[in-house]
Amino acid sequence: MSDRAYRRAARAAVRGALREDLAGYGDLTGAVFDGAGAGRVVARQAGVLSGVVALEETARQVDAALAVEVFIHDGERFETGATIAELRGPLAAIFAAERTGLNFLCRLSGVATLTAAYVAETSGTGARIAATRKTTPGLRALEKEAVVHGGGTPHRFGLFDGAMIKDNHVAAAGGVAAAVECVRAGAAHLHALEVEVDTLEQLDEALAAGATIILLDNMDTSTVRAAVERVAGRAVVEVSGGVRLERVRELAEAGVDVISAGALTTHASWIDLALDLEV
Amino acid sequence: MSDRAYRRAARAAVRGALREDLAGYGDLTGAVFDGAGAGRVVARQAGVLSGVVALEETARQVDAALAVEVFIHDGERFETGATIAELRGPLAAIFAAERTGLNFLCRLSGVATLTAAYVAETSGTGARIAATRKTTPGLRALEKEAVVHGGGTPHRFGLFDGAMIKDNHVAAAGGVAAAVECVRAGAAHLHALEVEVDTLEQLDEALAAGATIILLDNMDTSTVRAAVERVAGRAVVEVSGGVRLERVRELAEAGVDVISAGALTTHASWIDLALDLEV
Amino acid sequence: MSDRAYRRAARAAVRGALREDLAGYGDLTGAVFDGAGAGRVVARQAGVLSGVVALEETARQVDAALAVEVFIHDGERFETGATIAELRGPLAAIFAAERTGLNFLCRLSGVATLTAAYVAETSGTGARIAATRKTTPGLRALEKEAVVHGGGTPHRFGLFDGAMIKDNHVAAAGGVAAAVECVRAGAAHLHALEVEVDTLEQLDEALAAGATIILLDNMDTSTVRAAVERVAGRAVVEVSGGVRLERVRELAEAGVDVISAGALTTHASWIDLALDLEV
Amino acid sequence: MSDRAYRRAARAAVRGALREDLAGYGDLTGAVFDGAGAGRVVARQAGVLSGVVALEETARQVDAALAVEVFIHDGERFETGATIAELRGPLAAIFAAERTGLNFLCRLSGVATLTAAYVAETSGTGARIAATRKTTPGLRALEKEAVVHGGGTPHRFGLFDGAMIKDNHVAAAGGVAAAVECVRAGAAHLHALEVEVDTLEQLDEALAAGATIILLDNMDTSTVRAAVERVAGRAVVEVSGGVRLERVRELAEAGVDVISAGALTTHASWIDLALDLEV
Amino acid sequence: MSDRAYRRAARAAVRGALREDLAGYGDLTGAVFDGAGAGRVVARQAGVLSGVVALEETARQVDAALAVEVFIHDGERFETGATIAELRGPLAAIFAAERTGLNFLCRLSGVATLTAAYVAETSGTGARIAATRKTTPGLRALEKEAVVHGGGTPHRFGLFDGAMIKDNHVAAAGGVAAAVECVRAGAAHLHALEVEVDTLEQLDEALAAGATIILLDNMDTSTVRAAVERVAGRAVVEVSGGVRLERVRELAEAGVDVISAGALTTHASWIDLALDLEV
Amino acid sequence: MSDRAYRRAARAAVRGALREDLAGYGDLTGAVFDGAGAGRVVARQAGVLSGVVALEETARQVDAALAVEVFIHDGERFETGATIAELRGPLAAIFAAERTGLNFLCRLSGVATLTAAYVAETSGTGARIAATRKTTPGLRALEKEAVVHGGGTPHRFGLFDGAMIKDNHVAAAGGVAAAVECVRAGAAHLHALEVEVDTLEQLDEALAAGATIILLDNMDTSTVRAAVERVAGRAVVEVSGGVRLERVRELAEAGVDVISAGALTTHASWIDLALDLEV
Repeated sequence: MSDRAYRRAARAAVRGALREDLAGYGDLTGAVFDGAGAGRVVARQAGVLSGVVALEETARQVDAALAVEVFIHDGERFETGATIAELRGPLAAIFAAERTGLNFLCRLSGVATLTAAYVAETSGTGARIAATRKTTPGLRALEKEAVVHGGGTPHRFGLFDGAMIKDNHVAAAGGVAAAVECVRAGAAHLHALEVEVDTLEQLDEALAAGATIILLDNMDTSTVRAAVERVAGRAVVEVSGGVRLERVRELAEAGVDVISAGALTTHASWIDLALDLEV
Repeated sequence: MSDRAYRRAARAAVRGALREDLAGYGDLTGAVFDGAGAGRVVARQAGVLSGVVALEETARQVDAALAVEVFIHDGERFETGATIAELRGPLAAIFAAERTGLNFLCRLSGVATLTAAYVAETSGTGARIAATRKTTPGLRALEKEAVVHGGGTPHRFGLFDGAMIKDNHVAAAGGVAAAVECVRAGAAHLHALEVEVDTLEQLDEALAAGATIILLDNMDTSTVRAAVERVAGRAVVEVSGGVRLERVRELAEAGVDVISAGALTTHASWIDLALDLEV
Repeated sequence: MSDRAYRRAARAAVRGALREDLAGYGDLTGAVFDGAGAGRVVARQAGVLSGVVALEETARQVDAALAVEVFIHDGERFETGATIAELRGPLAAIFAAERTGLNFLCRLSGVATLTAAYVAETSGTGARIAATRKTTPGLRALEKEAVVHGGGTPHRFGLFDGAMIKDNHVAAAGGVAAAVECVRAGAAHLHALEVEVDTLEQLDEALAAGATIILLDNMDTSTVRAAVERVAGRAVVEVSGGVRLERVRELAEAGVDVISAGALTTHASWIDLALDLEV
Repeated sequence: MSDRAYRRAARAAVRGALREDLAGYGDLTGAVFDGAGAGRVVARQAGVLSGVVALEETARQVDAALAVEVFIHDGERFETGATIAELRGPLAAIFAAERTGLNFLCRLSGVATLTAAYVAETSGTGARIAATRKTTPGLRALEKEAVVHGGGTPHRFGLFDGAMIKDNHVAAAGGVAAAVECVRAGAAHLHALEVEVDTLEQLDEALAAGATIILLDNMDTSTVRAAVERVAGRAVVEVSGGVRLERVRELAEAGVDVISAGALTTHASWIDLALDLEV
Repeated sequence: MSDRAYRRAARAAVRGALREDLAGYGDLTGAVFDGAGAGRVVARQAGVLSGVVALEETARQVDAALAVEVFIHDGERFETGATIAELRGPLAAIFAAERTGLNFLCRLSGVATLTAAYVAETSGTGARIAATRKTTPGLRALEKEAVVHGGGTPHRFGLFDGAMIKDNHVAAAGGVAAAVECVRAGAAHLHALEVEVDTLEQLDEALAAGATIILLDNMDTSTVRAAVERVAGRAVVEVSGGVRLERVRELAEAGVDVISAGALTTHASWIDLALDLEV
Repeated sequence: MSDRAYRRAARAAVRGALREDLAGYGDLTGAVFDGAGAGRVVARQAGVLSGVVALEETARQVDAALAVEVFIHDGERFETGATIAELRGPLAAIFAAERTGLNFLCRLSGVATLTAAYVAETSGTGARIAATRKTTPGLRALEKEAVVHGGGTPHRFGLFDGAMIKDNHVAAAGGVAAAVECVRAGAAHLHALEVEVDTLEQLDEALAAGATIILLDNMDTSTVRAAVERVAGRAVVEVSGGVRLERVRELAEAGVDVISAGALTTHASWIDLALDLEV
């Protein structure tokens, strides 16, 4: 993702999150504290980091006088007890920024950490781990980039930057070939087209229709292997559908190019990070 | 939460989510399909539902011609295979709404389902299960209400509708009593004040300072029991800190009034729901 | 109010106010003036100041090159002829900022000045002067803080940061006790609850229902005195209802804790301030 | 003002006002009430009405199910005890709309009522009562129209729809004639130009410079009379500067065309209106 | 473009355009007219229509009581004197909507009409006429669709829905092959990639790098012919660079697949349409 | 236009334009380029410049690290081959800003250049060349100022800063005199009023009604000459209606004060400017 697009997304998400936490009089508890101090973001659990830009943006939006020093960067692994970053500035600002900043870091690091586990499973194979569009509403850019921080690839951003014919489209069109023709007619020559297939017969139909990107949906590993052989390099092959961590390696070894897993974002728990104040 | 506040939050969240999925030319794949049809939201996993308002709002924002019929309502339990709702209208609108609507339903039902498990564990005791402010940035209202759909209680919304003195505030003020005095002086007479304590000594100090709501943080169960006894009805007692499902019952039986658990939102996986098209 | 919440409110209010004054080609008169100068904000009437942040924000939003030096600060008393502040920079920017900046200062200082008169009346008693929700639409944060600048206390911000059962709620619930029960069931354990009573009978009912904050509405002073005695320290006592300046002292001496007066915002006239240009 | 411009302004102002009153969980007190009812807006004080559109808009934005029936319309006079309007619908919606709707009605009717008093004073003369730009930030359109409801005329809306050379501009340009020349050169041929004068000498200078709209600033009545004679119909004559109600008639009788008074908006107290629930 | 995306773009553009025309008191001239009437949009010049949705949206945003009946639809050809549409409703609303509605229709029909001329020139060949990103800031969606209404194809929407390596990228990377490798590494597997080449040598380099979409930039027709031969069906071939109407046919006959012309949007004059009132 | 109003308009227009070009992942092609460089904006065609503020604003919004040095300023003439400006900074930022910045410059310079041609035709006469409200939706402020950069005058901004009675208003009112009376009654004393006339009879009617600004619509030159004579200095005279460049001089010599031409904005082609990268 371009740096500008990522920062803009972070800015908007932080603005929304702060609005949730700080309506009315703002922080009823923390605003009364005068003086300055420092708060260290510390890891109570190991993981891979994501969300530093959101943390910095939170500090900036709460109070321009709040400085953030970052010790662990996006994509880096950290151990329990590590100091991720330090916020220095007015106590009231540290209190106001604490929960919002942590919420981003904990959630996004959860995604990066789970992705890194998937990526580790496929090391040495040619397969890439990809995110899906099953992202938390409002956090797509940040979660897609968290997948990148974990070593994965983001796939298309939304419905608008790549066409993908799925089972429901095939049903609507009355067949794979009809769906391909229909979508291609409406697309610009610069829009790519991927076709999801459930069976080897549909795979043949898709290849015959000229598809150059294929998604194998919910197939068992031996069928995946057969599909890869049948494609024989004529198309990029992606596999998806309930891909659990335990099964990633055998799919990768079946020769697919891309393994996309909704679980990267739908089954990632938050990493436990906390803020320790130093007055 | 007032119905109006909830619907406003859903409207804003859906608007943001649709913007993520539908920039540029919109849906490159689905927009080419003429004709109408119906799509059924079906459960591939059992759970407790939350997110119907967001589903309806998604349909409305995508195309006013898209009708939603709801069979399972927020707070109701469903089994695998159940039909949650049906969308009827233009195929292009169903395709454009599908992922966004599901993302809300799957995430929020995940929260409601996990909350319901916590609530079930405490049945027959006087303890209520409460959410925290560890909510996904941008989804606080929806996740807090998902906790309510699961049988829990939402706690304060943010920093602005209730004061809570936590360890960092105590550190900043130099003691529990000093922190209470400091915060009370700045608050309106209509703002409540809760005090977090780590030890029985701090508990005594808080009670002496006139605290009427106490949060026991990260205490073992026997200490919790001792604390409840020492409070002896003079204050509302909440317990928090890494509360896992296995431990909920023993905490409830220790006599606390409220058990708050970040895990309700930080460790909830998505419930698997899908949309099946009927052309 | 937290500094951040106040500044955000000022920023938004100034943005709206400038939009009112400067659509189309902007300032048809002042924009043609080249060169720089200084404009002094001078008092044509004595008072207590409020609105400096809005003045600074107006200058900033009109032109970053416009510097503001402040001589009298929020909450300070000034006499006729005093110089409140000085704007230095491009003439065109001074002209564009003049009316908007003054409108904030004059209105908010009017509120602060009237509040200060109420506060002076109660000096030596334990009663605090409080604002109500009868604030000018769009200016709640600024007017609540103007009350603070005048020595008062802001009360709850809105309907969302404290529950208050008023006569209409009692009517809807069918009695004080029923209303208290109904509202408490829906509230979080961290939301406070105040009960408005019209008679001593309702007062007894409210205390019996466990109310710890009581609002005596439109009672004559002897009844107020009787109510305070009956409460006997079991609850915080607020009095309200057409409280004019002449009656404040006798209410304060009746022993109430809080006197809230809509008049602070509904009957405050603008303080006369003007901008004198020095070319 | 065009109906569309007025309604748009009301819509935006109401949106902002509701945001002030209903953040977080919304109405902590009223949202728990099920069932429907009616609330009558009743006058506790006589006056001239303004703000019906804002009341209707408040109801609409709170809940589309809230119906408003209006008995007294903008610009109409009402007596103490009169029923202005009735809201019918869900109790929770009535509670949420009450304060915001009243705040608009009370403030705007205050402006309309004071304006009507000024207008009554000038009856039978040719002078019109005009508002100034001393309006509450954020409420300019509504307050200008409240002046119209009271029988006055709104003057220019802002700095952008009419040029007015005031004392500070004269100071900046080094004289009336220089200021007129400077502003006229920058204006379009369709932008009118008014010149403020402090003395009869400046008046001569302005007329010589071709001014066709003159503002007499802070002159005593005999000088005003002399000025009107000197103008002799060659220009529209406006008078302004601390115009109190007691002095309006003598100014009108001095022959001026327009009397503008900041007091219409800066010294108007709220009219006392309340909402009585009928369950 | 999906219908939803197009309507959203029209809505936003109309909102911005009305804001330009109707600040302050709104329409100073037309708002005073009571009563209703009808206005016919008539053609003073022949052309191909585009912009009906913007016209309808303008009417809707000005006043919901303004009805639009459409006689000529987007993409249809009309002659001088034709009635395009009729607006019926309040006179004040017709006046307020007139200029804004016409500005959209005249501009967009200008684009559609010029595109239709290009398309007519290529009839019978396999070449499609495509828009570029040289669109009026703020009107991209509407102008791209105007090209479609004229018979053309829209190309990519922006920088985000298709990668295109142009001369400056080649310069930055140090060669065509290096640029292709660099961009492909950063792209998702579902993002297409087009390569612009200036010479036949660069063409060979691009094909060798695996490019499947080629843009021939600013080549004379014989070189274009040679390029098409050299590609021999291995890639989609687009030609661009100062393509005037006179040269379109020879380029089409040279065998290219797509001819993109900035002139469709940069050299289209407005079609002369007017509104005739019928009182 | 005031500098502030112009810059605000540019900021908003650029924001909208960048959103069109940079959704989703942002720039799929250019974002992968590390390192810095410079890009020169060069003229491939002579003209008069407009749009520098939009170019600077584009750079600023894309990346604060992108510096712009300007060699030709708004209103200055340039020849083919001239370097207009240079952007220096990160390559990725130059790529992201290129098209948007150029689109503004090319369009606005087209308007300025055509205006300059009109102005040159009238040199030595007293007539000014004025823009109309036929501006591209969303770009009114920028196009009006481009007319100023070309030596013209901007006329009223919209319907709100000057009243103009046109043929449709006359039809609605039933005559020129009736229309003037009707509009004047609704206007403030500070709003000017122009009357469009089609015939010398209407001209007489308008003058009799006291009109001081007259628009001669679609008259042949001899009638214009007769009209100017008949007005004899009693009113400002504007002429409009299909004013082509060839006819401007004879109209100017007929003695009119203002010649307004929609063609300045409706028939201006883009000036050809390009960005050349220097790595």
